[in-house]
Amino acid sequence: MLKLYLAPGTCALASHIALAEAGADYTIEKLDMKANQQNSPEYLKLNPKGRVPTLVTDRGVLTETPAMLAFIAQTFPKAKLAPLDDAFAFAQVQAFNSYLCSTVHVAHAHKLRGARWATEETTFADMKRMVPKTVGACFALIERDMLKGPWVMGEQYTICDPYLYTIATWLEGDGVDIAALPKVADHHKRMAERPAVQKVLADQKA
Amino acid sequence: MLKLYLAPGTCALASHIALAEAGADYTIEKLDMKANQQNSPEYLKLNPKGRVPTLVTDRGVLTETPAMLAFIAQTFPKAKLAPLDDAFAFAQVQAFNSYLCSTVHVAHAHKLRGARWATEETTFADMKRMVPKTVGACFALIERDMLKGPWVMGEQYTICDPYLYTIATWLEGDGVDIAALPKVADHHKRMAERPAVQKVLADQKA
Repeated sequence: MLKLYLAPGTCALASHIALAEAGADYTIEKLDMKANQQNSPEYLKLNPKGRVPTLVTDRGVLTETPAMLAFIAQTFPKAKLAPLDDAFAFAQVQAFNSYLCSTVHVAHAHKLRGARWATEETTFADMKRMVPKTVGACFALIERDMLKGPWVMGEQYTICDPYLYTIATWLEGDGVDIAALPKVADHHKRMAERPAVQKVLADQKA
Repeated sequence: MLKLYLAPGTCALASHIALAEAGADYTIEKLDMKANQQNSPEYLKLNPKGRVPTLVTDRGVLTETPAMLAFIAQTFPKAKLAPLDDAFAFAQVQAFNSYLCSTVHVAHAHKLRGARWATEETTFADMKRMVPKTVGACFALIERDMLKGPWVMGEQYTICDPYLYTIATWLEGDGVDIAALPKVADHHKRMAERPAVQKVLADQKA
């Protein structure tokens, strides 16, 4: 049995969707980040980084979205969520997810998480002003060079798709017009229609 | 034949060491980042992100350090650079590398790459002041909870080791005293003694 610690509105949505798509046997545990539950002594014992998501497995605890997504794909191979027998194709999947975590998510985080990297209010305001541009540039690159269509890696739905969908849900709040990104917008719409995505969103709201 | 595009002093060192440890047949191509070669039209055709490293393979181009490291481990299984037959252990390797790319490298980048996320000189100065603290906190966590010893994952040397070594070479410049991190310091010293690391450092200087 797997247990996913998440908070609604965060990147944990990607792993949650992947678990549902994989047909995994899992439960979720919602953290209240406004109450700072991610920094409670109990949670820090599980994940000393004080972040979500955390995946508790029979073997121990996993963190970091790209690692968890690949783990889910490898643990449930019948769901075909990654090209597991092709190191190059698998690396393309991983490169996409790594770009999302290390560049796109980081660009987005400068809107509300400036205190991770600075101390002054004027700095936070400066960072915030640039988010539409930086996140917009990331998504322009995704639109132009990375999203093969209909799914991120082409015909086969993979662990890249729930992760892109998750980060694209932040676009409106980041001041980026998804309508100007037709491939991303189409991907987003088709993702929202998937039963696994609808179930997961309902479970996170419940 | 593999070809690695790199620039000395960057995180490309991790993949370079991994290729050498794997016994791969590869060549390197050095970019002059002071001359902005990473944004030349020729290079942007290979890697539209304008970053290093880029790995050119017979199948196409790969980017993003964690993806390239896992690719090298999977392509050269005899080198045993990752636990390829154990999804959980592989995910632990990936989680470590994902933390390095999305949190530790990002904390470091606020020293000199503030223009990625802001525009004002006062912002850059604020970001720069916080680097010793943020990078120091990341490495305190690595020291306390993540580096099992003697290698990152314990007895087996993996693709986590050259990546940690690479980022730890930035500690002095980031204002973090490696001597206060005995396990990291010991790891760094033993990495520097490895023939593959010495060869790669010499090749990058040549």
